[in-house]
Amino acid sequence: QRHNSTEPWFLDCLSCFPMQHLKEWVAVESDSVQPDLRREVIRMVTLAADRLRALGATVHSVNLGSHQLPDGQSVLLPPVILAELGQDPQKPTVCFYGHVDVQPAKKEDGWKTDPYTLTEINGNLYGRGATDNKGPVLAWINAVETFRALPVNLRFVIEGMEEAGSPGLQRLLEGERRRFLAAADCFVLSDNVWLSRRKPALTYGTRGSACFLVESGDKDLHSGTFGGIIHEPMTDLVALLDSLVDPTGHIRIPGIYDSVAALTEEERKLYESIEFDMEEHKSNSGVKRFLYDTKEEILLHLWRYPSLSIHGIEGAFHEPGIKTVIPAKVTGKFSIRQVPHMELSVIKQQVVEYLEDVFSKRKSPNKLSVSMPLGAKPWLADINDPVYTAARRAVRTVFREDPDFIRDGSTIPIARMFQTITQKSVIMLPIGAADDGEHSQNEKISRHNYIEGTKVFAAFFLEIAKLHEQLQQTSKTKTDN
Amino acid sequence: QRHNSTEPWFLDCLSCFPMQHLKEWVAVESDSVQPDLRREVIRMVTLAADRLRALGATVHSVNLGSHQLPDGQSVLLPPVILAELGQDPQKPTVCFYGHVDVQPAKKEDGWKTDPYTLTEINGNLYGRGATDNKGPVLAWINAVETFRALPVNLRFVIEGMEEAGSPGLQRLLEGERRRFLAAADCFVLSDNVWLSRRKPALTYGTRGSACFLVESGDKDLHSGTFGGIIHEPMTDLVALLDSLVDPTGHIRIPGIYDSVAALTEEERKLYESIEFDMEEHKSNSGVKRFLYDTKEEILLHLWRYPSLSIHGIEGAFHEPGIKTVIPAKVTGKFSIRQVPHMELSVIKQQVVEYLEDVFSKRKSPNKLSVSMPLGAKPWLADINDPVYTAARRAVRTVFREDPDFIRDGSTIPIARMFQTITQKSVIMLPIGAADDGEHSQNEKISRHNYIEGTKVFAAFFLEIAKLHEQLQQTSKTKTDN
Repeated sequence: QRHNSTEPWFLDCLSCFPMQHLKEWVAVESDSVQPDLRREVIRMVTLAADRLRALGATVHSVNLGSHQLPDGQSVLLPPVILAELGQDPQKPTVCFYGHVDVQPAKKEDGWKTDPYTLTEINGNLYGRGATDNKGPVLAWINAVETFRALPVNLRFVIEGMEEAGSPGLQRLLEGERRRFLAAADCFVLSDNVWLSRRKPALTYGTRGSACFLVESGDKDLHSGTFGGIIHEPMTDLVALLDSLVDPTGHIRIPGIYDSVAALTEEERKLYESIEFDMEEHKSNSGVKRFLYDTKEEILLHLWRYPSLSIHGIEGAFHEPGIKTVIPAKVTGKFSIRQVPHMELSVIKQQVVEYLEDVFSKRKSPNKLSVSMPLGAKPWLADINDPVYTAARRAVRTVFREDPDFIRDGSTIPIARMFQTITQKSVIMLPIGAADDGEHSQNEKISRHNYIEGTKVFAAFFLEIAKLHEQLQQTSKTKTDN
Repeated sequence: QRHNSTEPWFLDCLSCFPMQHLKEWVAVESDSVQPDLRREVIRMVTLAADRLRALGATVHSVNLGSHQLPDGQSVLLPPVILAELGQDPQKPTVCFYGHVDVQPAKKEDGWKTDPYTLTEINGNLYGRGATDNKGPVLAWINAVETFRALPVNLRFVIEGMEEAGSPGLQRLLEGERRRFLAAADCFVLSDNVWLSRRKPALTYGTRGSACFLVESGDKDLHSGTFGGIIHEPMTDLVALLDSLVDPTGHIRIPGIYDSVAALTEEERKLYESIEFDMEEHKSNSGVKRFLYDTKEEILLHLWRYPSLSIHGIEGAFHEPGIKTVIPAKVTGKFSIRQVPHMELSVIKQQVVEYLEDVFSKRKSPNKLSVSMPLGAKPWLADINDPVYTAARRAVRTVFREDPDFIRDGSTIPIARMFQTITQKSVIMLPIGAADDGEHSQNEKISRHNYIEGTKVFAAFFLEIAKLHEQLQQTSKTKTDN
């Protein structure tokens, strides 16, 4: 059922919204982190291409070949979808980016429902990918589908390797700078969530992420036969990981805070006005007490200061029960979320030098190896850009209130990538709520957010069409700089 | 083909030794550590019972019911086999203990052959359980089979839960003290290996083992969304594990060394005379440098001082690749090998108090929980006991040299258990070599050791029969004490 583009028809038309596509998409275990599930990722990308073709879009599936895993194994990459819908020079061209791969999820991780069966409980749609990012991608497609005559031209970049660092995507986009991407006036991503459960938000910055592997050793040994006479690689690794961050969350790596942008008074004021319910955030996270007591300190440390998290150890015993083995080849995994103006190459050097120093003091004969297989830069946008104006108006039309202007502590490297490659406006327009639990157990999107989010996207098409001239002007200024 | 018991016939008769039974036994994935493989353990125990019946033994399969896992799940226990062969009051009665369960093993852990397919390469028989403990159990059965008239009465205790701490076994044996176990004059275990690749050894002591779990947290979180504002359970756990042992292998838990038996001058001399090739041990372990430089220091720290090993973390990301999650419910696993006269209850209290102290200094809101699900005592025997004399003579007959008298850094709780319950002589008579890699990848027993070990067992039957009177005398003295 397509409507005339001049009417705000969509406010009431989606109440009997079909969930069938989301159900189908969530059912695909398109986990891009675990290489043995790559076939499912590829199948998922094909499903997405089918949906876009059903919209009437011209779909190109770009083959990226294969990539090499840390262990040397070569694995096929899923294709990237580049799709076009509309070529009217009188309309602005909006390019939407989304991903259809997901983080690993298993029922036994603590899910109350099967992660690959979309299940509605009390108005929430539970399932891996429901909010990150299958739900928002479908909401955008659904928004397009409600128009009889679209007020904008559309481009789509849909990939299946986001959760694994999007290998090959940057090169593809760089190559498409003067071709596929040239027509786009702005880029929209919806790959994050609001700061609140209730109040909509627009996102103008994200932290970067540098992932590190620390490795030690070779052959498993029996703790009875060797315990007490060797330097155990696991003991070395635990000491290395323990040296990274102190109990107050302060990163111990010398120099790591040196290039963090100074906080201006104006910026501090922006933080003061944001609506943020600490208690709500605490209950969403299941955390009893934060490292900081005030809203401002919490948001500052989440958005504009770096953090370090230890994710796990590969090669040690990880199953239930007990195995009294001395694990020998162990790999610790941690990441640093970094912010403007930290440089990845500098961070890497600081981490390597620090860990080598800590390790050398242990006088262990084990081998240390530190690598940074993934590094993504932080991103920061100008909130006075017309694309933010259009989004603000769209949110106001649907939700009857202004959105908060927020940053995101997570990393969405693609925002920074589109900005760097095209010099065009980039906006993150989230539709999921703070308690959606992306990357976590019991990930969900609420039925309400899924439907209202679809409306916001539709309203955004109308608003950005009105700002076509202003958008072109901004775009020209940016490209000239 | 059974021979007359008075002749040392067995020195040349086993060269065309059949490997079929060992192949069949290794093929069973009787991993008692992982509860979902329990059916295989039970199948393995049934196979062992069949072999004993084929010897002519009377076999009792004692049902131990089920046991509860740490997660509350109830799992069936395999039965314990109690078997009898011979009731002649003119012969001594030797009780053999062995286990037919194994440690976990997967090809992808780094095995060069399939762990459940017995594979001979350069005279070595590779496979999980080849040396720990399926090979030695079969060698004992094979030794019995070579006799037309056995010089001893035999009893067998064969279990399938040794690698998981033998739940229920102690109670069973206590109940059988005045029944099945009463007839036995001595107990033989062959559940460990020589100190050298080449030179046989008899073992007169083992360390105990106390396994600990340290747990923290509840729900996984995204490192972007929460990194920098919460006390991460993984950071807490890594700090706790790092506090346990220093880079020189010294355990940092206050008081832990207090009750370690003082080293006598006589004992130190015993260590000096042991043949121990440090370079060989180094190359067996793949370790570049030990914590100590001299043979004596190494053996002392392996056998008569405690050690602490960290085995792994449950609940954190452990697979290849990267998952930027903040794991929330994480459980660290470590064990302390303890020695006379350390007491398990004291160790537990010291560990709990120390970890609680370290944790409280971090001022973390996370929950700490420390438990000791497994604790096994150390064991020490008198090397002047007739059972050691018989074993020494048997080794000399087969290998034409005296065995070393050694201790073992590992824990074989059953040795201590038989000693405590029956007050009879207990000997550990290993037939595997130092490089067998029990509990490790590429576990093996050499064809040579398997065959010569069988001969040692047969020779031992003859020698212990000669010392029947002396054995009864010792047994009487011990029980009187």
